[in-house]
Amino acid sequence: MQTYIVTGCAGFIGSTLVDKLLSQGQHVIGIDNFSTGRHRFLEGALKNSYFTLMEGDLLDFDSLKHFFSGGEFVFHLAANADVRFGTEHPQKDLEQNTIATFNVLEAMRANDIKKIAFSSTGSIYGEPDIFPTPEDAPSPIQTSLYGATKLACEGLIQAYCEGFDFQSWIFRFVSILGERYTHGHVFDFYKQLKSDSTQLKVLGNGKQRKSYLYIQDCIDAMQIAIEKATDKINVLNLGVDGYSEVNDSVKWISEELGVNPKLEYAGGERGWIGDSPFIFLDTKKIRSLGWVPKHSIRDGVVKTVKFLKNNGWVMESRK
Amino acid sequence: MQTYIVTGCAGFIGSTLVDKLLSQGQHVIGIDNFSTGRHRFLEGALKNSYFTLMEGDLLDFDSLKHFFSGGEFVFHLAANADVRFGTEHPQKDLEQNTIATFNVLEAMRANDIKKIAFSSTGSIYGEPDIFPTPEDAPSPIQTSLYGATKLACEGLIQAYCEGFDFQSWIFRFVSILGERYTHGHVFDFYKQLKSDSTQLKVLGNGKQRKSYLYIQDCIDAMQIAIEKATDKINVLNLGVDGYSEVNDSVKWISEELGVNPKLEYAGGERGWIGDSPFIFLDTKKIRSLGWVPKHSIRDGVVKTVKFLKNNGWVMESRK
Repeated sequence: MQTYIVTGCAGFIGSTLVDKLLSQGQHVIGIDNFSTGRHRFLEGALKNSYFTLMEGDLLDFDSLKHFFSGGEFVFHLAANADVRFGTEHPQKDLEQNTIATFNVLEAMRANDIKKIAFSSTGSIYGEPDIFPTPEDAPSPIQTSLYGATKLACEGLIQAYCEGFDFQSWIFRFVSILGERYTHGHVFDFYKQLKSDSTQLKVLGNGKQRKSYLYIQDCIDAMQIAIEKATDKINVLNLGVDGYSEVNDSVKWISEELGVNPKLEYAGGERGWIGDSPFIFLDTKKIRSLGWVPKHSIRDGVVKTVKFLKNNGWVMESRK
Repeated sequence: MQTYIVTGCAGFIGSTLVDKLLSQGQHVIGIDNFSTGRHRFLEGALKNSYFTLMEGDLLDFDSLKHFFSGGEFVFHLAANADVRFGTEHPQKDLEQNTIATFNVLEAMRANDIKKIAFSSTGSIYGEPDIFPTPEDAPSPIQTSLYGATKLACEGLIQAYCEGFDFQSWIFRFVSILGERYTHGHVFDFYKQLKSDSTQLKVLGNGKQRKSYLYIQDCIDAMQIAIEKATDKINVLNLGVDGYSEVNDSVKWISEELGVNPKLEYAGGERGWIGDSPFIFLDTKKIRSLGWVPKHSIRDGVVKTVKFLKNNGWVMESRK
């Protein structure tokens, strides 16, 4: 048993990880600024005496250094996870991804904590030429502020491993789906259909091919990797061994809701500036550690829709 | 003719570029905070009415935005160029490389300037498996704060090209040698031998293999690339087609000074934490544009020693 620090503990992935760690009898210090995190996701955790919530911002280094006291392993999941709107506020990506990660690394150093797991993204591959895309794909060209600022985090973490003898697990996620999902295309489609089930606006041409992973499979993968991958720096793609089209999601969501909307495509291969029209990661490396996802992309989409149906509050309030 | 902005204009590479641009009849706005830049390197430029010096720091965004007014093309050369001491002050690399570059990009956006040339580094390849190392080498693992924060700059610049329709030339330099060289191994060796010509302390085992490029060849390469490489994002290695051992440098420097010091090796394959024991970049891409370096590594080392012999002031004062 040890004490885990989870940044972004009130977020989709963070809160699910917190619950999992607590169920395993671990101690957890959770940190969140509640800019997008939800207090309700921590309702269960807050009843557990092994959980300590620290409300604060990763950009406030002095507080952070204090919060990290007593921690042994850091899951750094806090981020500006909004890949779409980078060009509207580039500073936000730089601050909430790169500078926040730098502060996390410095707070670790100040508290002599040397192990970190980090939620990076398949977006760092930009628009790769190789599919499925392996971890050692040719040096990518960045196409989004989100990807660029996440790649910067990866580099900093790696340099701290070399310079300060840290050990790291860098996970390049596809999009994650499931309970507590609060942004992304399933959320957007559900919200539109809830307000008008007869029509649906789809960004791009609907043929964008993307890969997804169900939240519990994601948590399992991270825990297996941390246990079994023993290099100083472990870079691992996380995703299912396949992809679907945006149009597939539309179909599965519509079926689950029993609706048949008229589709209106914005057009073009990309949903937005910097969108990658094809994401499909090579997951041989994480599979070689014995991990297999238990849920298909369709499962993930359907479970997400069920969660949104039963939790109308996530659409309405931010807290 | 157009108006160039040169950040780090009082530095080794920056001041040499400024002189070259002015000799070609271009207008230049030079920016430097003189933390490592030297006023004396700008003595010639300051006599030219086409040159405007703006003394200020890239971290002061409001000033920067003002300085950039009227610029058409940015050479962003300012940096914490000290690859060796990253672990002593990680914040410095983050601020002076990554955050400063972000500010440059934002100042360009504020002034509707869309073209940027950037001095990146072969250090972003970490410890590659492929030699000579091509631009599209497998996604590298960062081994130094310097490399990590420079790679972060590359990613940001690329994302601005995609998001804001910028055009960029990203140059991955080997070590540059020649007149106005003010830090690095030739400087260190010269300084030691000047104080005591009978012995020389060498970091590592002296067998580190590194590549170098003479300053005027570097400037030529950048200008040829900007003229002839027309992609939205142009990533180019810059170096000679070869490498030398640290021991070769020791020999050439000793010969030039007419000394025969006893060598004392610190030992180990690396000179410092994060040092790459072998740097040799594939320069086919820049050569395909018609550029050929006119000077060998030995030429560069000897010219550097001659400069240091004739300019004792660079060893003594910082201004």
